[in-house]
Formats: sequence, structure tokens, C-alpha cells
Amino acid sequence: MIEARTLSGFRDYLPAIMLPRERVLQTARQVYRSYGFTPIDTPAAEALPVLLGKGGDESDKLVYRIRGAKSETEEMGLRFDLTVPFARFAANHIHDLGTPFKRYAMGPVWRGERPGKGRYREFWQCDFDTIGTTSNAADIEVTLVICDLFHALGFEKFTLRINHRALLNGVLESLGIADHATAILRSLDKLDKIGTEKVIDEMTREANIAVEQAKSVLAFAATKGTNFEILDQVEASFAGTVPAKAALGLAQMRELLRTVATAGIDTDRILIDLSIARGLEYYTGTIYETILNDLPSIGSVCSGGRYDNLASLYTKQVLPGVGASLGVDRLLVAMEELQHPWMTGATSPATVLVLQMDANMLGPIQALARELRQAGIATEVYPDAKKLGNQFQYAEKRGHRLAIIAGPDDLARGVVQLKDLQARSQAEVPQAEIVRQVQTLLAGATP
Amino acid sequence: MIEARTLSGFRDYLPAIMLPRERVLQTARQVYRSYGFTPIDTPAAEALPVLLGKGGDESDKLVYRIRGAKSETEEMGLRFDLTVPFARFAANHIHDLGTPFKRYAMGPVWRGERPGKGRYREFWQCDFDTIGTTSNAADIEVTLVICDLFHALGFEKFTLRINHRALLNGVLESLGIADHATAILRSLDKLDKIGTEKVIDEMTREANIAVEQAKSVLAFAATKGTNFEILDQVEASFAGTVPAKAALGLAQMRELLRTVATAGIDTDRILIDLSIARGLEYYTGTIYETILNDLPSIGSVCSGGRYDNLASLYTKQVLPGVGASLGVDRLLVAMEELQHPWMTGATSPATVLVLQMDANMLGPIQALARELRQAGIATEVYPDAKKLGNQFQYAEKRGHRLAIIAGPDDLARGVVQLKDLQARSQAEVPQAEIVRQVQTLLAGATP
Repeated sequence: MIEARTLSGFRDYLPAIMLPRERVLQTARQVYRSYGFTPIDTPAAEALPVLLGKGGDESDKLVYRIRGAKSETEEMGLRFDLTVPFARFAANHIHDLGTPFKRYAMGPVWRGERPGKGRYREFWQCDFDTIGTTSNAADIEVTLVICDLFHALGFEKFTLRINHRALLNGVLESLGIADHATAILRSLDKLDKIGTEKVIDEMTREANIAVEQAKSVLAFAATKGTNFEILDQVEASFAGTVPAKAALGLAQMRELLRTVATAGIDTDRILIDLSIARGLEYYTGTIYETILNDLPSIGSVCSGGRYDNLASLYTKQVLPGVGASLGVDRLLVAMEELQHPWMTGATSPATVLVLQMDANMLGPIQALARELRQAGIATEVYPDAKKLGNQFQYAEKRGHRLAIIAGPDDLARGVVQLKDLQARSQAEVPQAEIVRQVQTLLAGATP
Repeated sequence: MIEARTLSGFRDYLPAIMLPRERVLQTARQVYRSYGFTPIDTPAAEALPVLLGKGGDESDKLVYRIRGAKSETEEMGLRFDLTVPFARFAANHIHDLGTPFKRYAMGPVWRGERPGKGRYREFWQCDFDTIGTTSNAADIEVTLVICDLFHALGFEKFTLRINHRALLNGVLESLGIADHATAILRSLDKLDKIGTEKVIDEMTREANIAVEQAKSVLAFAATKGTNFEILDQVEASFAGTVPAKAALGLAQMRELLRTVATAGIDTDRILIDLSIARGLEYYTGTIYETILNDLPSIGSVCSGGRYDNLASLYTKQVLPGVGASLGVDRLLVAMEELQHPWMTGATSPATVLVLQMDANMLGPIQALARELRQAGIATEVYPDAKKLGNQFQYAEKRGHRLAIIAGPDDLARGVVQLKDLQARSQAEVPQAEIVRQVQTLLAGATP
């Protein structure tokens, strides 16, 4: 006998979590599509040179190597994100596809990291990007997509934190420490984790700047607010001489706020927050993070930003772009903790269970079930004519909302017994009216 | 510069094929769910012992090995189908999930085979199974699911070929050659490929039976038909002494035909065909194949059957089951060859493109676009205020159905220009009526 187990860091998705996962993915798909993002897919495996050399030794170690058949002499690896394969994809196909190109992609990625609570070696990403344009309209659209997405996911209480790299760079420039940007921003990124004192310590030590300069950077980064005034405040902090790039950043942020307000977004959800600095070496313009107001500790569940050039490792064609990625697995953990209404605990997608009373009646009850299915109501037929108690137990365990009992006597009389398993009530219903009656019960049900 | 290319035998899915692929998967998902099959997912990687030892050396060679970080000492491999992981999953979880258990699973699998025309090293499977019951009701349901699935996929002309292993075994028994079953059926399975003469040759040589016996097997296997009479004919061919198992097989096939007819399936689509014998060493009862009448040469696009025990390698619990698998990639090839209506060539999921005339008008046009999105009409906004010619070219290339032009003058007058890119007509429409007008145009459009 072979031991049945998943590998360390890998896991099965059971129905109770797969049902909400499929709903999350389908919702993201619908929202992305509604903006014209189109689906693409790339292989799980890429040639090793395509995967390596992006992030240095540290990230190269995370790449799973694959060994194929003897005839396959190429070195292969499993993708560790959806961005590197998209860059390779763009280099291969952008000539035919043309720009601007808007795509989404969903799928698992693999990283050989030490597994921990909520950290797996296989997890899902769900990205959308617009490439081939530097237009701020694309950045603004990312904001709209994220707001529509979280609304569609049933979250009303979320905060979209936005920053712009040009503002951070501008302040470093005006402080005369732009040359130390990388080290400074690397320390700044740790603010939430290690606190003000230690960041100042590190900045003076690692970036070799004065304590006062570090304090100025931190004071600037502490700027946050949900309205236009905050941008005026940022502008004022430059004391009259706004560096050109920072001025462009301010103009773009103002256009963003103005446009999303006109488009009907509640701008209270948008927090201009100069402390967020994720993907330091990658993002060059707007930066996004999405926080669930009721569970900020879980971190950002949808993040992204603008980059200058997607595919510089693979093609000479310059492909600027902007996009974000929904952290599906982290979101599902949050939905569980917050008892999100999609986490029903049900393990069947079917609303109705038709009980089987008599194997000879299988034809008529499947006919009945198909009528409900054709009306869009998922309807399962119990496969054996077992004791009713067993069948009801099954419905309880699986989370069916309604049960239909149709014995030979019922069918002979042209009726069925319709049982509301939630309200624990039962009614005799003419067969011809079953679809309408089920619809009525469901319409009155708690969502 | 790193060479951008996919590995040999692997491929990208471009938008023109991804859009129908997502539609196929979503359709399968909806049909499976409508019968109460519930989604599960298992990791791409499994411990090597879980994957090996199923099919012997030949299939073991196809398994891609994975090498992880130094700390990962377990031997790992990529799944080569969804059945072995499901068996391992069932051994792990069936105690908690309970039986009967109905699941579907969709995802890529990997096999290190020599790539060829239409044969890739990564391809998608899309399985559904009911385990934990021997009830014929579950087998009958597979028939219903396949018929509903192909109807929902837009195929009216398909044939579901059904066989029952008990009938084949019964005839071998009555001919006194049941001991040679494996070799005989292995030859029989080649009938379509090598023809009658060579099968008789091989049967006499490999299975060591007489030419007359081989001819009898072939005559029996040639039995096929779409109605009950064919089963009477099968019964008659036993000349009065039907072996017990064959009698059970006949009774189950009759129950199947009777039930699906009552449930409303056109039984002309169901071909009892005693020659199909796929998965010889695995299937023990009903066997299914689905043929597209307009493209039989592509082979079965949805196949499956009943098995005695899913997870015998991993658990002592006996888990009989029945299910089938949709060959997504093969189906997509067929849809292309048959110019299926879902193969539109469009590369955008959006129906409407809103052209951008003036960057200052981005707010109003995104507001307009969101109104359409909220009405369920996917609407893309062009990201730059480029020349109209460029924007129309983009719409043509992407396959948008309608375009909206809303310049500052239009917006000031409360109107937009709505352009039907298919009919090449244009009309001025009040902004307040845009959703209704777009819906009207789409309702009148070819599907």
C-alpha cells in the first residue's frame, strides 16, 4: 500500500473551499473581462534561462527544476509567478497581437520556500495588465477595476492605497539624496514591520544619510489622506521647487482622483499613502495595495503598479505597462476569518436534492431534475434507493437547500413533496409547478 | 538577451483560443454542477511513489520529475492525469467527505511524450466522477451529463457510444475463452486502426485462440445500434444460455436506455457499440465514448466508464465509481476544424469599445462605460486619445462589435455616436439611452 499524502507545502482544495474559490475566480474573470482584459495562458514549465536571472541567487533558489524524459535535454523549471511568463509571452507574440494589449491570467505558481501558516509552495495568482501604453488612463483603469472587483467580491469595506514612485523620488531629489534611493526605499518598505526607530537606524547606516534626512523621508512618507488636499499638502512640502518628475506624479494622481470620482467611485475608498513602496526595483509609477478594513493585518490582497518595461530581458521592444494581481489564497483566508457570506460551508453546488425512493422511478425523477436544471437550478439525484434517513443525512452534510421526495404514489398522483431543509417545512406540489415553487422558495431565502 | 520561446511540446494559449477554451470550461463547470458534482483541486506535484507503479515502466517514463530546494528531500513528480491524484485525494479525505461523493476537476496534466501534431506535453483534462456507489443510477447519470454537456457546448450532432464490459466478458465465457480475455480485448481495441484481418491474425497468435473463435468475437463486437432491439439481438446471440454477468450487463443497459429516454434524451444519440473497449485493464462495467458526427476521425472527445475500485493502491476502503473526462484540447481542435460558432476569431471579450477623443473626457467616458458594464455589457475604453483611425483599427483587430464615440461636443449636448462595426452603421444616441440602445443592437445581432 502506498502512503496517501500531499507533499510538504502542497495541499488539496476540498469542496467547502473550492466552491468559494471558483466563485472568486469567476468574479475576477467577469470584472476583468468587463473592462476588455482578455485571457491568455502560458505553460507551467518554462526553459530555465527564461525563469532565472530576474532576481538574483535568492529567488533563483526558489525555482523548481524539472527533469523530463531522456530525449528532453532542455533545462526546465516551474514558473514562480505569472509576470515572467507574461514577459516571455509578450516578446513572442506582441508583434502579432499589437498594442495596447490587455490581458488577464489565472493559475498556480510554485516556489520552493519554507512552508508556514498560510504559506504554501503552490498558490494561485490572478493578474491583469495593460501593456504597450504609458497613458495614465491605464493606471486610472486599474483603480476602477480593483474597486469594481472588491465590490463584486462582496467587500464594501476596503481601502485602495495608492502611491506614485515619482513623489518618493522627488522628495529624495529635493533632499539631495536621490543617489541613495535604493537603500533608502528598501528600509522604508520595512516601516510596518520594524517601526520608525529601526528604519532611521538602518537608513543612516545602510544608505549613509543623516538622521535629519531620514526623518524628513519618514515625515514625507507618513503623508496620507483620502482627498485632493493631501496632494496639495504633498506639493507644499516641496517648498515651492517641485522637481519635474514629482510635478508629473502629482498631476497624474490628481487626474486619477478626479476621473475615478467622475466615473462614480466612492473616493473615500482611495487612500493616497506615500509610505507604500512595494516592488521597489520593479515599479516606476503608480503603486497599488488593497487592504480589507476589517482585517488589515492580513496585508494587501490585491497589489500592483506601473513598470517601465515588461520584457526587456527577452525583446528590444519597449513595453511599458500597469497592472495588479489578486492574491486569491490570501483572500480566501481572509474570507474565512471574516465569515464572508460566500463561506457557507456547503460542499455541494446543488441547491436541490431529489431523493430516490424506488430504483424503478429513476426515469421520472431524472426528468423532473432535468426540468429544474434547465431552469438554472442545480439539482442532484441521490444514486441509491437507500433509507430516507441516510439520504437526508447526506443532504444535511452537503448543504442542499431543498429536498424533493417523489415516491411511486406521488408520481402516480402527479405530485411531489417539496421540503425546505432550512425552514424545516414541507409542502405537496403538483409536478407541473415544481420549477415555479422551487424558484419561489429560493427567492424568499436568505442569500 | 534571453531567447523567448516555449519548451518543445509546450505552448501558449493566445486570446483567440483562450476565449473559446474558457467558454468550454465554464460550460462543463455549469453542467457538472447542475448535477451536483462538486469541484476539488489537487496539487500539480505529488510524491513520486504516488504517481509511479500504476502502469508499469512505460508510463513511469512519462512522469516529469521535480527537484526542489535542498531542504526538500522528497522525490516529486508532475501529475500525468487527474485520476491518480483523485485516488490519492479520496484515500486522504473520503472518511470526512462521506460517500457517495461526486466531484469534478479541471486542470493541466503533464506527460513527457514525443510531441506531434495536436499532441502536447501539457494538456487539459476535465473529469467528473461519482464514487462510493455501485448503483447503475450513477452510470445512467454519466449518460445524461454527457448529452447535456454536448448540447450546452453547441453540438447537436454527436454520438455517445456505450458498451458494457460484462457483455464482452460474457461472450468470451460462452466461447470458452474467458481466460484469454486480456490479450483478446487488447487486439480488439485495435480494430479501428488495423482492420479485421490483422486483428484475427493477432488474436490467434497472441491470445492463442482458433480463427473461428476470433471471428465469433469480432462478429459479436460488430453489433451496434441505437435501440432496444440491439440488446435483444445481443441476448439472442448467446443462444439461450446467457452467463449471469452478461445478463446483469444487459439488464443495466436496458435500464439505461429506458431511463434516459424517460428523462428526455433523444436516444438516437446513444449507440450501443460492443466494439469499444478502452482502458481495458481499468474499466469493469459501462464504457463511454463520444464522437462528433461531423468529425469522427478526431476520435472520442469525452470518454470514461465504470471501475471497481478507485484507490486500491492507497487505501483499504473499496471505492467503486463511474465517470468520464472531457478532452478539452481535442475538442478545441475539432471546434476549429468545424468552424464552430464559438470560434469567432475575436481576441477581446469586450463587446463595446469606447474611443477616446480627448484625455480630459476620460471621467465621463469611463462613467458611461461603467454604466454599460453594470448592465452586463463588457466595455473597453481605449487608453490613449490617438487618431480615430488607429482606434478603429484596434477595434477591428480585436473584434469589438460596437464602438462609441463621445467627443467634448457630444458630451456637452448629452449624446454619443453609437457605431455598429458589423453592420457599418452609425446613430446619434442620447447618453441616458445608451444601455437600452446597445442592448437593442445586440439583441438584433447574429449570435
